[in-house]
Amino acid sequence: MKFYDCSVAPSPRRVRMFIAEKGLDIETVEISIRDGEQMSPEFQAINPYCTLPVLELDDGTRLTNSVAIWHYLEAAHPEPALMGRTPLEKGLITNWQWRIEKDGMEAMGEALRNTAKPMAGRALAGPHAYEQIAELGERGKLRVQRFLDGVDDIIGSKPFVVGDSFSVADIDLLVMIDFAKWLKLGLPEGAANAKRWYEAISARPSAQL
Amino acid sequence: MKFYDCSVAPSPRRVRMFIAEKGLDIETVEISIRDGEQMSPEFQAINPYCTLPVLELDDGTRLTNSVAIWHYLEAAHPEPALMGRTPLEKGLITNWQWRIEKDGMEAMGEALRNTAKPMAGRALAGPHAYEQIAELGERGKLRVQRFLDGVDDIIGSKPFVVGDSFSVADIDLLVMIDFAKWLKLGLPEGAANAKRWYEAISARPSAQL
Repeated sequence: MKFYDCSVAPSPRRVRMFIAEKGLDIETVEISIRDGEQMSPEFQAINPYCTLPVLELDDGTRLTNSVAIWHYLEAAHPEPALMGRTPLEKGLITNWQWRIEKDGMEAMGEALRNTAKPMAGRALAGPHAYEQIAELGERGKLRVQRFLDGVDDIIGSKPFVVGDSFSVADIDLLVMIDFAKWLKLGLPEGAANAKRWYEAISARPSAQL
Repeated sequence: MKFYDCSVAPSPRRVRMFIAEKGLDIETVEISIRDGEQMSPEFQAINPYCTLPVLELDDGTRLTNSVAIWHYLEAAHPEPALMGRTPLEKGLITNWQWRIEKDGMEAMGEALRNTAKPMAGRALAGPHAYEQIAELGERGKLRVQRFLDGVDDIIGSKPFVVGDSFSVADIDLLVMIDFAKWLKLGLPEGAANAKRWYEAISARPSAQL
């Protein structure tokens, strides 16, 4: 297997943390998005969507998004389970992971890609050039802050996003909160449950990657 | 269990088809988005995100998005498998389902919600009012057509999106193509593989729902 990574982007970090939590050792290739390597003909031959991460399996199959890579690795290496064991756990973990991806990570991408100067003409990831839409950037920032304001209620008194064990929902929430610092947005003052959770998850070895 | 459905919206259809393919019989409650019932205090108490579908489990847990509902039902009722049996199948089905959701269904939502007059002030699903952004509506239409132009390559000579069996990737692709008719967009002329696939999937009993 070969893992195409990018150390500065949020989506590949979701998979780096997952691989570390599973204790797997996978050959890794760094692709520099600062140098535009994801748009090169060489990388387009690997992933026509021009995005990271990519997991290349031994039979040559390539999985080109984080959630697909998680599902493959979870099924191939079930322990420790990071996507739930029972139907209820699987349902709840997906419920929150999807929500964090949609209302948190996607809103963050909307905000950053439509406001940051180096992202001009790159308002969406992928092979096509889309111009920035200023109004969409502002809407994205508003959505990110609304999401961050709700994290305290998502966590409540629990140690993890879902139940008593670490899961992909925790990975996505951590990656989202850390990356929102680029927008100078963060958890609100007084979000005691969210901050307790954030400190505990940030201290995991996988979170250092 | 109780399934909160909406017969005219695309996301609930993803779950209706899944339930039918599994041969399950689940009590169903219709919520009328034409009458704005998803914004009512009664429904907000069921789902604060004001979206359909919702699956309410017997212990009172509520799953509030299609993908979470699929994972719960797939684990609770494994046969027939609709999300893959092997690690490779699970990875590939998720790979395509996620891609269809992102580049197809989400682009469609972007196009429709930012251009249709009845959607004024409702440019995103959920409890918050967001104004339409005309430029985003146009971008959405362009993305939908680009996605539809690529379906023939996704299908190729295969009977299904992934391998030899029907999966959630087929459900999402069918729901996306059917709903794109509201935008007067469709598969391009000459997309012979995509059209063969579309006719076969459209003929399934679950697709009549």
